[in-house]
Amino acid sequence: MKRELKALLEAVRDGAVSPEEALLEIKTEPIADLGFAKVDLHRRLRQGTAEVVYGAGKTPEQIVAILNAMRDHGQDNVLVTRLSEEAAEAVGREVPLHYHKAAKLAVMGEIPQPDGLGKIIVAAGGTSDIPVAEEAALTAEFLGNEVLRLYDVGVAGLHRLLSHTQDIASASVIVAVAGMEGALASVVGGLADCPVIAVPTSVGYGASFGGISALLAMLNSCASGVTVVNIDNGFGAGFAASRINHMEAKP
Amino acid sequence: MKRELKALLEAVRDGAVSPEEALLEIKTEPIADLGFAKVDLHRRLRQGTAEVVYGAGKTPEQIVAILNAMRDHGQDNVLVTRLSEEAAEAVGREVPLHYHKAAKLAVMGEIPQPDGLGKIIVAAGGTSDIPVAEEAALTAEFLGNEVLRLYDVGVAGLHRLLSHTQDIASASVIVAVAGMEGALASVVGGLADCPVIAVPTSVGYGASFGGISALLAMLNSCASGVTVVNIDNGFGAGFAASRINHMEAKP
Amino acid sequence: MKRELKALLEAVRDGAVSPEEALLEIKTEPIADLGFAKVDLHRRLRQGTAEVVYGAGKTPEQIVAILNAMRDHGQDNVLVTRLSEEAAEAVGREVPLHYHKAAKLAVMGEIPQPDGLGKIIVAAGGTSDIPVAEEAALTAEFLGNEVLRLYDVGVAGLHRLLSHTQDIASASVIVAVAGMEGALASVVGGLADCPVIAVPTSVGYGASFGGISALLAMLNSCASGVTVVNIDNGFGAGFAASRINHMEAKP
Amino acid sequence: MKRELKALLEAVRDGAVSPEEALLEIKTEPIADLGFAKVDLHRRLRQGTAEVVYGAGKTPEQIVAILNAMRDHGQDNVLVTRLSEEAAEAVGREVPLHYHKAAKLAVMGEIPQPDGLGKIIVAAGGTSDIPVAEEAALTAEFLGNEVLRLYDVGVAGLHRLLSHTQDIASASVIVAVAGMEGALASVVGGLADCPVIAVPTSVGYGASFGGISALLAMLNSCASGVTVVNIDNGFGAGFAASRINHMEAKP
Amino acid sequence: MKRELKALLEAVRDGAVSPEEALLEIKTEPIADLGFAKVDLHRRLRQGTAEVVYGAGKTPEQIVAILNAMRDHGQDNVLVTRLSEEAAEAVGREVPLHYHKAAKLAVMGEIPQPDGLGKIIVAAGGTSDIPVAEEAALTAEFLGNEVLRLYDVGVAGLHRLLSHTQDIASASVIVAVAGMEGALASVVGGLADCPVIAVPTSVGYGASFGGISALLAMLNSCASGVTVVNIDNGFGAGFAASRINHMEAKP
Amino acid sequence: MKRELKALLEAVRDGAVSPEEALLEIKTEPIADLGFAKVDLHRRLRQGTAEVVYGAGKTPEQIVAILNAMRDHGQDNVLVTRLSEEAAEAVGREVPLHYHKAAKLAVMGEIPQPDGLGKIIVAAGGTSDIPVAEEAALTAEFLGNEVLRLYDVGVAGLHRLLSHTQDIASASVIVAVAGMEGALASVVGGLADCPVIAVPTSVGYGASFGGISALLAMLNSCASGVTVVNIDNGFGAGFAASRINHMEAKP
Amino acid sequence: MKRELKALLEAVRDGAVSPEEALLEIKTEPIADLGFAKVDLHRRLRQGTAEVVYGAGKTPEQIVAILNAMRDHGQDNVLVTRLSEEAAEAVGREVPLHYHKAAKLAVMGEIPQPDGLGKIIVAAGGTSDIPVAEEAALTAEFLGNEVLRLYDVGVAGLHRLLSHTQDIASASVIVAVAGMEGALASVVGGLADCPVIAVPTSVGYGASFGGISALLAMLNSCASGVTVVNIDNGFGAGFAASRINHMEAKP
Amino acid sequence: MKRELKALLEAVRDGAVSPEEALLEIKTEPIADLGFAKVDLHRRLRQGTAEVVYGAGKTPEQIVAILNAMRDHGQDNVLVTRLSEEAAEAVGREVPLHYHKAAKLAVMGEIPQPDGLGKIIVAAGGTSDIPVAEEAALTAEFLGNEVLRLYDVGVAGLHRLLSHTQDIASASVIVAVAGMEGALASVVGGLADCPVIAVPTSVGYGASFGGISALLAMLNSCASGVTVVNIDNGFGAGFAASRINHMEAKP
Repeated sequence: MKRELKALLEAVRDGAVSPEEALLEIKTEPIADLGFAKVDLHRRLRQGTAEVVYGAGKTPEQIVAILNAMRDHGQDNVLVTRLSEEAAEAVGREVPLHYHKAAKLAVMGEIPQPDGLGKIIVAAGGTSDIPVAEEAALTAEFLGNEVLRLYDVGVAGLHRLLSHTQDIASASVIVAVAGMEGALASVVGGLADCPVIAVPTSVGYGASFGGISALLAMLNSCASGVTVVNIDNGFGAGFAASRINHMEAKP
Repeated sequence: MKRELKALLEAVRDGAVSPEEALLEIKTEPIADLGFAKVDLHRRLRQGTAEVVYGAGKTPEQIVAILNAMRDHGQDNVLVTRLSEEAAEAVGREVPLHYHKAAKLAVMGEIPQPDGLGKIIVAAGGTSDIPVAEEAALTAEFLGNEVLRLYDVGVAGLHRLLSHTQDIASASVIVAVAGMEGALASVVGGLADCPVIAVPTSVGYGASFGGISALLAMLNSCASGVTVVNIDNGFGAGFAASRINHMEAKP
Repeated sequence: MKRELKALLEAVRDGAVSPEEALLEIKTEPIADLGFAKVDLHRRLRQGTAEVVYGAGKTPEQIVAILNAMRDHGQDNVLVTRLSEEAAEAVGREVPLHYHKAAKLAVMGEIPQPDGLGKIIVAAGGTSDIPVAEEAALTAEFLGNEVLRLYDVGVAGLHRLLSHTQDIASASVIVAVAGMEGALASVVGGLADCPVIAVPTSVGYGASFGGISALLAMLNSCASGVTVVNIDNGFGAGFAASRINHMEAKP
Repeated sequence: MKRELKALLEAVRDGAVSPEEALLEIKTEPIADLGFAKVDLHRRLRQGTAEVVYGAGKTPEQIVAILNAMRDHGQDNVLVTRLSEEAAEAVGREVPLHYHKAAKLAVMGEIPQPDGLGKIIVAAGGTSDIPVAEEAALTAEFLGNEVLRLYDVGVAGLHRLLSHTQDIASASVIVAVAGMEGALASVVGGLADCPVIAVPTSVGYGASFGGISALLAMLNSCASGVTVVNIDNGFGAGFAASRINHMEAKP
Repeated sequence: MKRELKALLEAVRDGAVSPEEALLEIKTEPIADLGFAKVDLHRRLRQGTAEVVYGAGKTPEQIVAILNAMRDHGQDNVLVTRLSEEAAEAVGREVPLHYHKAAKLAVMGEIPQPDGLGKIIVAAGGTSDIPVAEEAALTAEFLGNEVLRLYDVGVAGLHRLLSHTQDIASASVIVAVAGMEGALASVVGGLADCPVIAVPTSVGYGASFGGISALLAMLNSCASGVTVVNIDNGFGAGFAASRINHMEAKP
Repeated sequence: MKRELKALLEAVRDGAVSPEEALLEIKTEPIADLGFAKVDLHRRLRQGTAEVVYGAGKTPEQIVAILNAMRDHGQDNVLVTRLSEEAAEAVGREVPLHYHKAAKLAVMGEIPQPDGLGKIIVAAGGTSDIPVAEEAALTAEFLGNEVLRLYDVGVAGLHRLLSHTQDIASASVIVAVAGMEGALASVVGGLADCPVIAVPTSVGYGASFGGISALLAMLNSCASGVTVVNIDNGFGAGFAASRINHMEAKP
Repeated sequence: MKRELKALLEAVRDGAVSPEEALLEIKTEPIADLGFAKVDLHRRLRQGTAEVVYGAGKTPEQIVAILNAMRDHGQDNVLVTRLSEEAAEAVGREVPLHYHKAAKLAVMGEIPQPDGLGKIIVAAGGTSDIPVAEEAALTAEFLGNEVLRLYDVGVAGLHRLLSHTQDIASASVIVAVAGMEGALASVVGGLADCPVIAVPTSVGYGASFGGISALLAMLNSCASGVTVVNIDNGFGAGFAASRINHMEAKP
Repeated sequence: MKRELKALLEAVRDGAVSPEEALLEIKTEPIADLGFAKVDLHRRLRQGTAEVVYGAGKTPEQIVAILNAMRDHGQDNVLVTRLSEEAAEAVGREVPLHYHKAAKLAVMGEIPQPDGLGKIIVAAGGTSDIPVAEEAALTAEFLGNEVLRLYDVGVAGLHRLLSHTQDIASASVIVAVAGMEGALASVVGGLADCPVIAVPTSVGYGASFGGISALLAMLNSCASGVTVVNIDNGFGAGFAASRINHMEAKP
């Protein structure tokens, strides 16, 4: 996909396109200014990923307009995150969408064949953490990764997790999703020898403080190789895991 | 020891002592008022434990005065907690003390023979947690308990802890001491079937916030049966563990 | 109950069961993997307690599936905590339950005869703290303990608490439940000579910060022997109190 | 003392002084502008109290200049708070002072005969709270109050406090000074029928968070009639207590 | 009112009543144990105030039961705070109440003639602070005080406050109610020479953090003589102000 | 507009009006005391701006009363902020209003011709920040400023912002509105050479903590010349920007 | 000063300089890369201000290197902020500096003649706030502004501030510096009709939390037109005030 | 390196080693129990990395003992983090070390030839962030990575960062180190198409709160693909970056 930009630059080098024209194309075209949003039509070109729309805080009308602008520019595969069931219904009446209720996530277009270095494990501490875990898992799948789900493997019942040490050893990247005390990240981090991305969830009550407890625990993990994303940010974890799972040599 | 109070009350019942006299004895005598402190000389009588002096915020002179007041009333075994090395030296010149430097804890008198229901395990996550762990262990020993120390068993190297599952299964009470993400409490709590007392430590940096991270994690532990004490409160954990390890039937 | 595991191990020792078979039985069978949850069917075997299901964040369908999986494996007595009235009704249509509305707690099966070392006191500061106190009290009763309730004994009306010093002296374990300034734990802790488990509640307004004020006060209690659980965690306190009330000698 | 202002105003009413002249006198004269400080020379006139200088953050030279400006205008009795021992020595070489080391407080001039409605009790939870308690007690004495000190009456040893219920019943105002869990304010508030001013102290460790725990507990006190001042603000409590102890009818 | 207790004690002194009988009367009778609440029937006797019921967290049925228990023991004047409109209606069907909607406060019985030392000013920063201010003002009136309301006198329009300096100078006690930056307490505190009780309110948005900003500002007030109550605690301020306004000499 | 006050003062100087009369006019007349609010009728006179009513926490009836009081005194142009759609409808039935739904802001009277030094840029990070941005933009327009809106220029897509460097260079004042990590303020601050006012918004989730994250980032901006207002305070930013855009020489 | 860049661009327009050369000059030359720092040699060119070096966290050697790099490129007037006395001495041995001890601020070169629209008032609440106030005042003077200092005008002694209402009315911009409860910003904001920049200071103790209390109060100021900078950020306030005081028409 | 374990397992498969022996070797041997620490001698075997010792909270004697235990088991390359200069000197007298003062990091053994997929960029916002950045850079180099340092590229001078867009585009992984407002992570994240690991630093003052501000900003980054580690955790970022830079296909 990054070929396109390179081709443009080579056309500049070869004199087929003037630098000014090239600059113009790169700078101005990729943004479709809808007033309330500047839709980035070249991010795929610049960053090599399909496009994602953050659904929270946008009206269904705005989302439809954005999706249509993208389709008009040839971007057929778009992920919409944090989309409520009602909004999904409203948007779905205008644009064809596959909606995943638990993860509050919709896909326009196709889930591609996985093509990464290996498989991504999404591990979740408890049943209540599943919505965030699914956001991570579906995001990773949308971005071309094979995903293995390990749910309800919280550390208070350690044998449930230990029965999957084989899986953990064979993973390419692990996303560890947990609320409450967030200890899953440290234990998984200690068992794994691959990158681990920890996602604190807002699951819990009292001194869980909406996920702060899990967030702090994960940031303080004594297991090396663990990095952390925002509370409930399943999308961010799935996205980062996909980038890591698609690493390739850069000479 | 609780015999004394019972004897007094029986004397009341038998008419040998008038209720007023008894009341007076219970209420007024046990307190030696030193001005800056009211030394409780009957706590042993009322609560069945040897006496403890909280050393922080007291001058060596004040501590000496308190210890002497206790000795004058026959309390020969006293634990002094949170005593700096300098203060210990100053106090030690006036009163015979055994000082434990790492735990900043001094003992006047003798460590008794252990007599509890079983042994107390004090488990610590990392080397830096040892001072707090020692405060817990020495307190428990001072109060008549056998103690088994398991140090440097943090969850990031899970196999170090799992090699002690036998010990964990045989413990009467477990004190789990950990800083940073405090996950030790949850993992131990999941493995054990005895009461677990978690002690967060101020070990760590950055978002450990002086022990808040570990404290929150422990309070949110998804393992049942875990209770928590204040950050760095090794004494409190050792004291509570001893009480539990000395439980007996109350008809 | 721990006989079962011991019997299995003795069968191994006697050659009737091979170690591999035993391992298989211990490791794989006890978990019924329902996809969204791994139901632990041997916790009773491993940890010696009846089973508990945390109801929050699970759908009625999920809870019914878990309860049925348990019944299929012979676990007839199960406690479901944090179950809303609506969910309780839905679950109750599929599985026979006794629901306790104030404590948001349901019992499948029978409350056993109490068999602990003594009685557990559940003391609550104010009328508003009763739901959490009931969660603790019913949990303790479900786990085989005699419970004495002392409600509305907040420290601002000290005489209400002092009229129960006899009860406090005779208790085996005390659960102190309080919101607002949480001072009940310290005062009870100073009067009692048994383990005290403090439960901060989210009762209050303004600077009570949803229970943080009471939590901090309890963690800082100057009374020795007090340990603390999460805000509103009546279940955890009842569970830990039961463990302590069932202590026995471990040689 | 308030006579002076009244006299001035009556002179205005009687035509002896023009309003403009009066205004000028009230507005401009009372402030001695030292550049770094505007010394208020009429506060006594306006608010009826002797003058107080907050010593923290001022150099000894600045304090000396302020005290001299006051003496030049006839204010001979001044309280200097939060004055370090070194600063007190330096100031004392220029101005005659009585320095109270524990309370870090110096008095220029005389402590007056007490003349309030009754006596102020200053109660402190532990030995470490005494410096703050002394700041309150000495401030109250400086402002003309009889003070009764009750130290080391923390709620964990309730009998130490209960042996003073007579004193509590006879007090005019009570200042309750406590760190850690700050429960003293609630218990005293429940026993007393006079105004209670609670002073949280920064005494404690771990989750005491430098006095936040005690502060929150005191703000949430379920005892009516308790008001609170800043952490370690013994001066503020003593000042407010004195105002209350000097209440008189305002028709 | 305090005569009753004194009479009882004099009867003891004179031999008409035995100490045991007296003790019994003082200790046991005053509490009507309703199970969910221990109604204190002698607080008036012990603390000299009419009774107050904290309405939040109690069902209308519980409140009715408490009020009836009080009426059965001759307490006809009761204040119920934090009572929602719906609850007030339900309670009002069983017990005669005057309900004040803005302040969420109900009075059973009569508002007495004011009899304090002077008048209490209740000053409020903005229109949104009026509900809390009314809670303070009505509480003070219920407890026998004349109240002057100064509303919408926030410091951003200083002239609105300064036009009332006469009132401020003549007040016996001032209750300063403000949200947002809470500066009213400091400005009033600087103008007044009587006790000032500051009430932070949860009025505001963003970094007002539900009243924390105002609370902190008030605790840090550089004006001497200011004390603080919990966020939105109009009742507490009115109660404390009444106590101060009813001070009398205690020899 | 400031002429009026000056004229009054000149009349005083010339003897046409006595100082007392002048004082009276300035001090007493401008406030219309509606009981629940003191409507400031001379702020325009004193501070040179049209009047603003903060709508939150006021009933429609109160707002109507305030607007009518203003119209009665000749203030025809009033801005009402934080007005819900329902309240706007109710008020609009009594007083003619233009309501801006996204910004929850209503205008009574006319938007004036812009007359400032230059144009104000209102830049917003994301679509969800638009309501706050509109509050700022409409406020500035109401106060006589030309406004240029740059929306959806968050720093994660830097080219969207960089395509507007020309605009940024030509602005008189910039209001930078952003939630989440709030980095927009720093980047804009680094590009601009005019005053930048940063507005954190409560947009985000998890560790955005309702705008705290953006607020802290903006306060810590390493770009000189950036100042900050409260979370979601679009009005405050627009108001301050207008003041700056109307600066004139003060000799 | 902005002439230079314009001249360069005009040279481009006129063909005297090729765009590439211009770009090169703008992009590459202005940064002197010292390894540990990239010294910005064209900020004056781009942003129209003299250069400032943030001294904290840099060694004297690094500061000397930066200052020399600047002098080599013709920037003779540089402000160094947050420079300790020791560092200032060390730097001063290599580069001629004027050091202001209270403000921890050094000036290389000359303080220019003031040339802004009017004068900037720097008002400080208490004597302890003077170091931060001086940082603001000296910064403003360094940037070409006339500054009027009003120190020790805290709101608890309101008359001290009110005696300067004339000054406040005549100011071009006001910087309000205060710690503790930070109320000065609101009161000044209510009195002034010019932009007010509030600087919270870390002055205070207990619940001032190192300036958080003052910061929150200032962010919540109910006075319109107030913006806020970081705690103790006198430099930032002086810088922003100077920008505002140098506003000019931008057509 | 992972060969060793595989070889062992193949020996088991081939019957050369019994499973029990293998288990024993894996489980028991790798830990050298020094009492205060359990040195993990097989982590290299299990996790494929050289060994790291966390130096904070350990005495020089303890560190020497650990390093010697490692050397005795053939681990010659060890990284010691958070080692003070004094401790480094003491340790260096017993064990040969290369100490990096700025990063407080010591290396025993050799820095290997880099062998990852590409180069790791370590970008730092300001000069004061360099110690943390160096900790990350040196860690990455120790673990076999080529590192490119981009220092002093904070977003307030955006052109300094933009002059390195080429480097950013060619990086394999980027570590973004910044204090204060932490915006660097978002801007870099928006420019890069590789994984970005953000490290908040404790650099700043006032409302930077020791790195909390930067931490929150980074967690809330609106740029996808950014993950975060603990405040000042340069080691953790370097370690995670190395893992990512050594990704390989896992079939």
